[in-house]
Amino acid sequence: MMQTLSIDNNERLQLSPLTIPSRLLLGPGPSNAHPTVLEAMNTPPVGHLDPAFLELMDEIQSLLRYVWQTKNQWTIAISGTGSAAMEAAIANTIEPTDVVLIGVAGYFGNRLVEMASRYDADVRTITKPWGQVFSLDELRTALQTHRPAILALVHAETSTGARQPLEGVGELCREFGCLLLIDTVTSLGGVPLLLDEWGVDVAYSCSQKGLGCPPGASPLTLGPRAIEKLHRRQTKVANWYLDMTLLSKYWGEERTYHHTAPINLYYALREALRLIAEEGIENSWQRHQKNVEYLWERLENFGLSLHVDKQFRLPTLTTVRIPQGVDGKAVARQLLNEHNIEVGGGLGELAGQVWRVGLMGFNSRKESVDRLLEALQQVLHEQR
Amino acid sequence: MMQTLSIDNNERLQLSPLTIPSRLLLGPGPSNAHPTVLEAMNTPPVGHLDPAFLELMDEIQSLLRYVWQTKNQWTIAISGTGSAAMEAAIANTIEPTDVVLIGVAGYFGNRLVEMASRYDADVRTITKPWGQVFSLDELRTALQTHRPAILALVHAETSTGARQPLEGVGELCREFGCLLLIDTVTSLGGVPLLLDEWGVDVAYSCSQKGLGCPPGASPLTLGPRAIEKLHRRQTKVANWYLDMTLLSKYWGEERTYHHTAPINLYYALREALRLIAEEGIENSWQRHQKNVEYLWERLENFGLSLHVDKQFRLPTLTTVRIPQGVDGKAVARQLLNEHNIEVGGGLGELAGQVWRVGLMGFNSRKESVDRLLEALQQVLHEQR
Repeated sequence: MMQTLSIDNNERLQLSPLTIPSRLLLGPGPSNAHPTVLEAMNTPPVGHLDPAFLELMDEIQSLLRYVWQTKNQWTIAISGTGSAAMEAAIANTIEPTDVVLIGVAGYFGNRLVEMASRYDADVRTITKPWGQVFSLDELRTALQTHRPAILALVHAETSTGARQPLEGVGELCREFGCLLLIDTVTSLGGVPLLLDEWGVDVAYSCSQKGLGCPPGASPLTLGPRAIEKLHRRQTKVANWYLDMTLLSKYWGEERTYHHTAPINLYYALREALRLIAEEGIENSWQRHQKNVEYLWERLENFGLSLHVDKQFRLPTLTTVRIPQGVDGKAVARQLLNEHNIEVGGGLGELAGQVWRVGLMGFNSRKESVDRLLEALQQVLHEQR
Repeated sequence: MMQTLSIDNNERLQLSPLTIPSRLLLGPGPSNAHPTVLEAMNTPPVGHLDPAFLELMDEIQSLLRYVWQTKNQWTIAISGTGSAAMEAAIANTIEPTDVVLIGVAGYFGNRLVEMASRYDADVRTITKPWGQVFSLDELRTALQTHRPAILALVHAETSTGARQPLEGVGELCREFGCLLLIDTVTSLGGVPLLLDEWGVDVAYSCSQKGLGCPPGASPLTLGPRAIEKLHRRQTKVANWYLDMTLLSKYWGEERTYHHTAPINLYYALREALRLIAEEGIENSWQRHQKNVEYLWERLENFGLSLHVDKQFRLPTLTTVRIPQGVDGKAVARQLLNEHNIEVGGGLGELAGQVWRVGLMGFNSRKESVDRLLEALQQVLHEQR
């Protein structure tokens, strides 16, 4: 048979082995992975039901509970990047026609709206200018008006650099009988997070920011009230790959095969979490805070201004206003091409108005700030 | 603030760096990755919009077209494992109430049924005993009866080791005006596949089998007829993360941000595909065929019998009947624990009846067969 096959070789590229420039990733993510995390990832894969792998899954679960400060049994890593974990949170909590109230003060609030509507939620929104956050009073009024089944808020809005305070929101949600669902994509590992103390019912994150791991295995946690809602569903979860009623049987005692996990990314995630446990989560938060304050000081001393009020600024991601007359895109391009430093541009409403500078995980170091400022000063000097 | 935080250290495991046993993975997947693939994966990540990364995405697209033998423009890697690519194929082609005809002769045919029903398809099935395949006549009769919008078949049924012949099926689907959707999870790279010549409209696969890459970035391709159906949809694709109307703008010229890609897995996939292009896809198919025939010969000489008729056996995965009186699970466990060799057990209808032995990608080598047979003879000798 083989002899008669006619093979089309048009797309048979003859490539050299991979060469990728070495970048300092100070954008909104991914951030650089810790060297020992890459080393762990390089371990040859084993099977997804190998006893050694199942033990590693348990370790990941424990350490995720630790970094999130939760006792939630259903704390796992989704086999996809942060947006997959976001969709898992949505898909497993929303039933068609549920009223879902979403706080929108940035790009990822809008993404929640888009996703929730695909799961046939009755979506309501409260909005704020990008870079601001909601007060408890504003949330109370909105809950009174909309009486949602779920309140969804972005703890760390990656598009604006604003931190939504969560103290008291969980109690409010219990008062109004709704679940509290939180986006912690840009906060986990780098920003104080006390899920249980704050009464958060559902949260998700990613691996490539505060955890300092490559992207592709993304934390998700469901508390008892969320699980109860899931068990009460009249309809199956509309998304098979992300269905926690199935995934919980693979991560739980049954070990029932669901899908093949991205084995090597779990190796990496386990090592990233191990490093944080070694450092201590509160020390990681303090390190992020200390280094970002140094960044703010250096930027402001250089004459740049920051987009978010100091009290609501994230320690992981800073939005820097692009000075008038400066071509922000050209600056970012020059930083990348000439200095191998990535910073992000503005998204949505802030497109063209800000740079987004991340100091996350392994990259939250004084040297990152020094290297960025030196390059930025040089580039802006040339531009002017 | 930090001083007043009360941290729960109960789940703060104090772990040593990762140690994972080195296994020869001869189960249904993952298979061992080629060493240079692991090396490529170890390259520090860059951003998902870095020009160097966008170039790599183009290379992956070309090489996927080559290994699948298709000209389909929409040929990409999904940011998840094989089941995510399966769900992407389903989500992007099925509209609610579509009649979807699925050939079920194994576990993954059933998975297609389960997924399609979650996307509100009107699912019809044709069935065969596990290990058998459908004839063109049987498919014609079923198409006449059900008049589906989509016919879904599993090219390589991972649960049975059977290869569904596809020659002529594409023409049949055109005659009946339906799309042909194919599961190539256990065939891509190891089993002859000529998507365009066979008139396949939609196909998906994984990275960790015939391509010899770690799991987590999974090929998906949509041909012109599938794209036309997608553009004609009355409703949005129900799955946001896997929505090809959005993903095609990231993989296409627009380069619009959708989600953060699992960067390092794309490095690995690019290297795995590069190695196949270097070898030549037809040479890879021949290598798989030659080595599996050696496996069959060795197994049969040893007195074991194979579950699938020779003409329909996959070159990538072989189902071996467990001899009467032998505890199949105990044998597999002993192979793993004492010989560091993974083989799979039976799934579903074949649970307890067969072992599943994969020779895929980098593992399709004479030495794999020799090592397995030596260990298997020893274990079975001890068992008897």
